[in-house]
Amino acid sequence: MTDSIVRHHTNARMSKIVQAQGVVHLCGQTAVGTDIGDIAGQTREVLSRIDGLLTEAGSSRARILTATIYLRDVSDFDMMNAEWESWMPSGAAPARTTVEAKLASANLLVEITVTALQASIMTSPD
Amino acid sequence: MTDSIVRHHTNARMSKIVQAQGVVHLCGQTAVGTDIGDIAGQTREVLSRIDGLLTEAGSSRARILTATIYLRDVSDFDMMNAEWESWMPSGAAPARTTVEAKLASANLLVEITVTALQASIMTSPD
Amino acid sequence: MTDSIVRHHTNARMSKIVQAQGVVHLCGQTAVGTDIGDIAGQTREVLSRIDGLLTEAGSSRARILTATIYLRDVSDFDMMNAEWESWMPSGAAPARTTVEAKLASANLLVEITVTALQASIMTSPD
Repeated sequence: MTDSIVRHHTNARMSKIVQAQGVVHLCGQTAVGTDIGDIAGQTREVLSRIDGLLTEAGSSRARILTATIYLRDVSDFDMMNAEWESWMPSGAAPARTTVEAKLASANLLVEITVTALQASIMTSPD
Repeated sequence: MTDSIVRHHTNARMSKIVQAQGVVHLCGQTAVGTDIGDIAGQTREVLSRIDGLLTEAGSSRARILTATIYLRDVSDFDMMNAEWESWMPSGAAPARTTVEAKLASANLLVEITVTALQASIMTSPD
Repeated sequence: MTDSIVRHHTNARMSKIVQAQGVVHLCGQTAVGTDIGDIAGQTREVLSRIDGLLTEAGSSRARILTATIYLRDVSDFDMMNAEWESWMPSGAAPARTTVEAKLASANLLVEITVTALQASIMTSPD
């Protein structure tokens, strides 16, 4: 068992990335800004942010273990799913849970929290 | 650290089971169908589905690590708990969180998301 | 891979602490009692409970991996954050998600669920 925790983009409140024991934990991702569009656009922005953070953490959308999706209005379920399914690589879909919840700001329509497995660490034979 | 992910029942949206590093992640379980009964019946169905998936993943209800329970109406808390407690083996109760949330369909009263530890992998001495 | 699960404060419904593979899972923490105060006071009580449980589990607030924060009224976001940020050690903030949700009792304003990494296990050189 290793005891190290690696954090990235850490402020007083949260870290955007926390890595321990080969698992990457991202903070809940939302769209950012005041003119952040509809559910399709917000979902695409959230997924793009997840891509960037997972790449930075040595993982990828093909290695997501779990996703928890919070929708401000669960009637956006189908439109969120259309974006999600076009983004997800074939055969790589994670264990997922989707519920309705109000988010930190009134204009936020979707927040997604994921965990992922880091890519393998190559060790050279000696 | 191993880098492999094992998935079962994977479609374009989610996998019902995702296993990595000895931990089993199930997607959020709900009752299925249009005539799915009251909170007691739905809770029993959800727990039965969890049983089946954990068995398939080489784990069991006695090895659940965490459970997140979403109730459409938190006033169903006591009736959900009665089913939960009769199902849970003595001494095996997980770390649990219960909150109110609307779920993907209006007739869904309860959704439960669990993680569990796989059973030990026996390795023969060589 | 070890297959052992360690639980503390286990009853028929849940365990307050579940440990496996070096990770500590706490059940969702809330204030306790009928006269439990405002969002600032409840947040302080919740964080104090987390401190106690993490210490018991061989971890600490400096080793939290993830936090999921449920607020009964998301307009309490800023007041909860003020308490959270004064409690969190510099540089140690976890991956965090905050959403609005009604909790098990009507007087509960905040519930926080965390996972943390256990401290290193010292092994003596032989």
